[in-house]
Amino acid sequence: MSEHVDIREVSLRDGLQIEKPIPLSAKLELLGAVAATGVREVEATAFVSPSKVPSMADAAELAAELYNYPDIEFSALVASPNGAKRAIAAGLRAIEYVVAADDSFSTANVGRTSAEAIALIGDIVTIAHDSDVTVEVIVATAWDSPFQGPTPPQRVLDIAAAARDQGVDRFSIADTIGTATPGRVTSLIARLRPVIGDLPLGGHFHNTRGAGLASAYAAVNSGVTRLDASVGGLGGCPFAPGATGNIATEDLVYLLTDSGFNVDVDLQAAIAAAGVAKSVVGHDLPSAMLRAGDRIRNGA
Amino acid sequence: MSEHVDIREVSLRDGLQIEKPIPLSAKLELLGAVAATGVREVEATAFVSPSKVPSMADAAELAAELYNYPDIEFSALVASPNGAKRAIAAGLRAIEYVVAADDSFSTANVGRTSAEAIALIGDIVTIAHDSDVTVEVIVATAWDSPFQGPTPPQRVLDIAAAARDQGVDRFSIADTIGTATPGRVTSLIARLRPVIGDLPLGGHFHNTRGAGLASAYAAVNSGVTRLDASVGGLGGCPFAPGATGNIATEDLVYLLTDSGFNVDVDLQAAIAAAGVAKSVVGHDLPSAMLRAGDRIRNGA
Repeated sequence: MSEHVDIREVSLRDGLQIEKPIPLSAKLELLGAVAATGVREVEATAFVSPSKVPSMADAAELAAELYNYPDIEFSALVASPNGAKRAIAAGLRAIEYVVAADDSFSTANVGRTSAEAIALIGDIVTIAHDSDVTVEVIVATAWDSPFQGPTPPQRVLDIAAAARDQGVDRFSIADTIGTATPGRVTSLIARLRPVIGDLPLGGHFHNTRGAGLASAYAAVNSGVTRLDASVGGLGGCPFAPGATGNIATEDLVYLLTDSGFNVDVDLQAAIAAAGVAKSVVGHDLPSAMLRAGDRIRNGA
Repeated sequence: MSEHVDIREVSLRDGLQIEKPIPLSAKLELLGAVAATGVREVEATAFVSPSKVPSMADAAELAAELYNYPDIEFSALVASPNGAKRAIAAGLRAIEYVVAADDSFSTANVGRTSAEAIALIGDIVTIAHDSDVTVEVIVATAWDSPFQGPTPPQRVLDIAAAARDQGVDRFSIADTIGTATPGRVTSLIARLRPVIGDLPLGGHFHNTRGAGLASAYAAVNSGVTRLDASVGGLGGCPFAPGATGNIATEDLVYLLTDSGFNVDVDLQAAIAAAGVAKSVVGHDLPSAMLRAGDRIRNGA
């Protein structure tokens, strides 16, 4: 009767996005460690502007290496129809299209208002489905904006309705700045479900204020079936080292499996991959399990 | 309709217990900062063996200063009837008596098996109630033992039944080594409630494996009305700096209030107290809000 939760490993994209660019060889080392965890879904890279996101400038080169892992479903983030075309040309079979729920963040991020970004969903779905590629719409700043404070839930529902109407394959909500808490997670998902119907729902949380895992657990208990996470909690903020980041894969695996859920990711392999992540970026990472690991093995 | 959660500040006892002893003046500085948060309950110290716990050797001296904060209910931890007498003689009005659920930990900790520790509950209640002092029984290693692995829930239920039968005023369950997760928290509390009836139930969680706040939130949703926390997440392990510790008061306050619960503790004052805690112990602390604070004030 154990429920299964799909974990998507996002260290290679969201985790590395704000890091100083690392060599492709280092990314492949991290990918190898991630693949060894047993994870079935990996966000590999982003097809976005290399000048704005230099750490993802090698997207096509990385994509060319993914054939080595035929059991993993790789996805790439895009911010425009052109990005979708590039991702598909590079061989990706799953595309994530991000739509920010608030205009200030959306404009700062992609130079388009939220409504303008919503209007492109249909084009991206057409481009993708013409090549039998799946599309996931991810709502950024689903709970709060760094510029405008709390996001009115109706803005998320509007994006969800548009995504549903345009025939996307998956839908996710992202706590981009790490401010969501379990109460608001549960509340938003309850309002979303009638809008998205049977669309698979994912959640993306950061641990900036310590509530990321609690929010992720609340999401699972509200019907989310896939959670993004990064080994080591990679994805921190360069001006607050070790303090923020995505929820750590190994911390999530510990919490979920100990709470009775099934996941594909092996805990010890995820801790090992977190060690590789720490090594390739060259600084400490916020993962709790990476630090507690030795004590666990010693039985303490 | 917002529910209230009582937060007990434990930085002065559990937070400092494993630290190198700090001067009484530094403890009083921390106490002042803690009192300024608006917290109503503070675990002030422990009346235990000064040779085993040198950081608590000044228990009576600290207790003599507590009259400065008449609005706060102070408690002290004891491990024996003699400790209870010392605490009462020093002026404490609330006693916490710890009973470990597993024999290995209990023996290592207090030189008594779990059954032997349970047998002393009655004496301690008599001593306390004769002086109109309240007694709380806290179950240590309620979920896991560092030596014996998972704690059979029946052992916790047996302590609860003894505590109830002996007329204790409060009952708490402690995740001493930071291994509990929401699923097991919910499960244990569901089994405890029929045993303890209307006894107020508290929870004590560590964030060693990243699940502390998620477990605390699960506890609140299962009927726990008081949570222990320490400013800064003080209470870490000396051989893994910054990695473990009690759940941080300011992280808990953020999570609970943002999720719709009421607490007495002011968030910004708690972040300030965490800064004082960091200063008095002289090393980084694991609090997320302490690091994220500036970004929150900047709206990000």
